[in-house]
Amino acid sequence: MTEVAAARRSRITPEREAELYTAVLDLLREVGYDALTMDAVAARTRSSKATLYRQWGGKPELVAKAIRHNKPGNISDIDTGSLRGDLHALTSREDDCTMQQNAALMRGLFMAVHANPDLLQAFKELLVEPEMEEFHRVVQRAVDRGEVRADSPALGYVMHMLIGAFATRTLIDDQPPTQQFLISYIDAVVLPALGVPTE
Amino acid sequence: MTEVAAARRSRITPEREAELYTAVLDLLREVGYDALTMDAVAARTRSSKATLYRQWGGKPELVAKAIRHNKPGNISDIDTGSLRGDLHALTSREDDCTMQQNAALMRGLFMAVHANPDLLQAFKELLVEPEMEEFHRVVQRAVDRGEVRADSPALGYVMHMLIGAFATRTLIDDQPPTQQFLISYIDAVVLPALGVPTE
Repeated sequence: MTEVAAARRSRITPEREAELYTAVLDLLREVGYDALTMDAVAARTRSSKATLYRQWGGKPELVAKAIRHNKPGNISDIDTGSLRGDLHALTSREDDCTMQQNAALMRGLFMAVHANPDLLQAFKELLVEPEMEEFHRVVQRAVDRGEVRADSPALGYVMHMLIGAFATRTLIDDQPPTQQFLISYIDAVVLPALGVPTE
Repeated sequence: MTEVAAARRSRITPEREAELYTAVLDLLREVGYDALTMDAVAARTRSSKATLYRQWGGKPELVAKAIRHNKPGNISDIDTGSLRGDLHALTSREDDCTMQQNAALMRGLFMAVHANPDLLQAFKELLVEPEMEEFHRVVQRAVDRGEVRADSPALGYVMHMLIGAFATRTLIDDQPPTQQFLISYIDAVVLPALGVPTE
């Protein structure tokens, strides 16, 4: 975040910010991205549209920030001492019910992204890139510990593996992604691809 | 295909069938699934709606069949003698331009699937399951040759790996999937996960 953005952000309390994000996600689930208006967010949260625009810049940024805020815990707080431990811990940040709600939400937004280049841009900057950076730190620690070779060609594909499994589960297996599925996939695919023994 | 379905299918020539599928895909690209009507297909192909319904049952089945027909070559024709050779050969069934057009088409349909349970059903039966079966044969041959251990836990995830990489490429890397990307992913992720050496 730039200092200017941080200064702007500081005008509302963290509690108020959380309340706003919750309202945005509720509205997203109810009407979807395209039908979501800043007017509706303003009305639901009893704030002025001017405040919303001043704080977030626009609908794409507000939505991306709301999604990111909704992610439980911070990846960088996880440090179990092994890559397997860290990746397993990552899957248990959300219980299965929350994971399925979020999968539905993300599916809706994944559609909207392709029709809204500004949403794609906000998603990349405010959601995908920060998450990738945190993932990168988890994996880099494994490299530093000597668990993963620094020249492992799979290092560039950790996100493709994980997000890909999450995204394709329903289509391929007719069931939503669960913690158990992700843990099994991490042990069967992600760790072996990175050359990390799973037992 | 059941014998009844095969008998119904035989009423039109393969050339005519190909012509119809091409028209369906053109219309899909032009207007998307939701706006695609059987009337428009009938008009574009100078056929009667009754014929279309008799031959395919409905719009979801017609669309799924058109997509499947459009896939170049048959996976089961590929048999290079090694899993690596087979998987690489699979990626070169489509050139990059076709692959990107198809990625855009599939993205649109992936959205439509979630709002249309009958399309999801047709997709599974007529597209996903037959493709998975053919993939399964490619992988089973590798098991039979002793290239992949029969109890490799990654065996159940080959489709998640491949479709997942294809689906997440644009979001994560801001570039469309290409043959080069898929080949690199196969060597870095899919083969190591299956315990197959890549050199």
